[in-house]
Amino acid sequence: MVYLNGNFIAKNKASISVMDRGFLFGDGVYEVIPVYQGKIFRLTEHLDRLQNSLDSIQITNPYSHDEWQSILTKLSGLSSALDQSLYLQITRGADTQRKHNFDTLTPTVYIETSPLIAKTKSQLENGFSAMTREDIRWHRCDIKATSLLANILYAQEAKQHQVEEMILSRNHQITEGATSNVFMLKDNTLFTHPTGPNILSGITRDLVINSAKACKLNVQETPFSLDDIQQADGLWISSSTREIMPITLLDDQPINQGVIHPAWSCVFDYYQQLKND
Amino acid sequence: MVYLNGNFIAKNKASISVMDRGFLFGDGVYEVIPVYQGKIFRLTEHLDRLQNSLDSIQITNPYSHDEWQSILTKLSGLSSALDQSLYLQITRGADTQRKHNFDTLTPTVYIETSPLIAKTKSQLENGFSAMTREDIRWHRCDIKATSLLANILYAQEAKQHQVEEMILSRNHQITEGATSNVFMLKDNTLFTHPTGPNILSGITRDLVINSAKACKLNVQETPFSLDDIQQADGLWISSSTREIMPITLLDDQPINQGVIHPAWSCVFDYYQQLKND
Repeated sequence: MVYLNGNFIAKNKASISVMDRGFLFGDGVYEVIPVYQGKIFRLTEHLDRLQNSLDSIQITNPYSHDEWQSILTKLSGLSSALDQSLYLQITRGADTQRKHNFDTLTPTVYIETSPLIAKTKSQLENGFSAMTREDIRWHRCDIKATSLLANILYAQEAKQHQVEEMILSRNHQITEGATSNVFMLKDNTLFTHPTGPNILSGITRDLVINSAKACKLNVQETPFSLDDIQQADGLWISSSTREIMPITLLDDQPINQGVIHPAWSCVFDYYQQLKND
Repeated sequence: MVYLNGNFIAKNKASISVMDRGFLFGDGVYEVIPVYQGKIFRLTEHLDRLQNSLDSIQITNPYSHDEWQSILTKLSGLSSALDQSLYLQITRGADTQRKHNFDTLTPTVYIETSPLIAKTKSQLENGFSAMTREDIRWHRCDIKATSLLANILYAQEAKQHQVEEMILSRNHQITEGATSNVFMLKDNTLFTHPTGPNILSGITRDLVINSAKACKLNVQETPFSLDDIQQADGLWISSSTREIMPITLLDDQPINQGVIHPAWSCVFDYYQQLKND
């Protein structure tokens, strides 16, 4: 079952008009929200970010916080999985003719849920590979928009190279991964690119920062470079579905000689506690 | 009537799955092809560019040249308008689950036609206004992709400011308009940004270049700056539906004291002849 514009229907019956501006223009925004043990995780933070995305592209939020909560709770309750990933997408809606500029339309709201199977700590402790690429995306990566072709191409390249993620740099500074935020650990300080138009302000990113502080790490939201990574004690990526994943091989070169720094274990454990809040 | 995946159907019956990657990711490409006096204009050039776009994002072209010609001819024949604008969009297709990377799917093909009412020469001779903006789009603007949110936001801003177009610059060089190519005339030379990842290689752009040469203008495909425009004899934008439009006011400042250079008239006339080829 999925949610589409007020109705809970079978996924294979869920269809939209070809005139939907999500289809014609990638004119929409989205969120991915985890559900742990049947409870929606950090809903307020996700809805706040959704509001920012909507405001940035001038779509009026179709629902109040309570309405979102009610719809998401009902949809997640229709699934038997205790841990889920809720995907919600709002597009500007369907117009009568294709034109770039827009009038006020009735937004299209699509929500689906899928089982979320997080990797175990011992799986994560094997470490993961990543590669680096020039960040060719647009300059409003703070908007969680469905115009995702650049990210798609990176994700496909990662699959073709059998690596977990493509880590992106703009003007020699690491911005984020194609579908994650990026952290570098060096001398007990955790670095990550500051929020702003170059990166998505990840909810998990914030929780990693909080977890790192709880583990007595210093946190600096300042940019770092590929050169800096070569001397790093650790490199992690985060997203709501991946949580915190240690990268041990970047462009075929080991990070910290391939050893996962113990700080990762502390941050991972603290993050697991947050999930039960 | 529109065309969708092999069927000619009423537009209000044309729907796609919410799982279509065009809807979820802006994972598709498109073309806009004029029809003049019932004849499809520069079909080969448009299909060649479509092939480049498809190749760039690894979608296999679902149809041969002859199949495209047959479908487009049939659809345009269903319209009573002699002059039309054919819009065709190919997305990667619908998957069973949302994931960034992709497998080979059956592409979705959507085509519609609408009457094309070109502005008359005397309408164009009134001149048009434009504004300039930093080019924040991704760095593969040579792909005619449906991930168009940046262009949407520019087009809306143009509408809000009641100007015809937003003219974009990257690193102080004019790239193109949000939905057009840009030309600057100076001392009998027509300048336009070279093809490459920064601009869409417009079919009309090529025809403007040919028309300019026929009018004894030199043509230089080299970048020019906002400063250069202040000394320009003319500034034009081109697209298949706008043809060649003189901009006489940029950021509220007149171009060439608001006078349209006579070279524009020659290029316009030559272009009109090409339409009857």
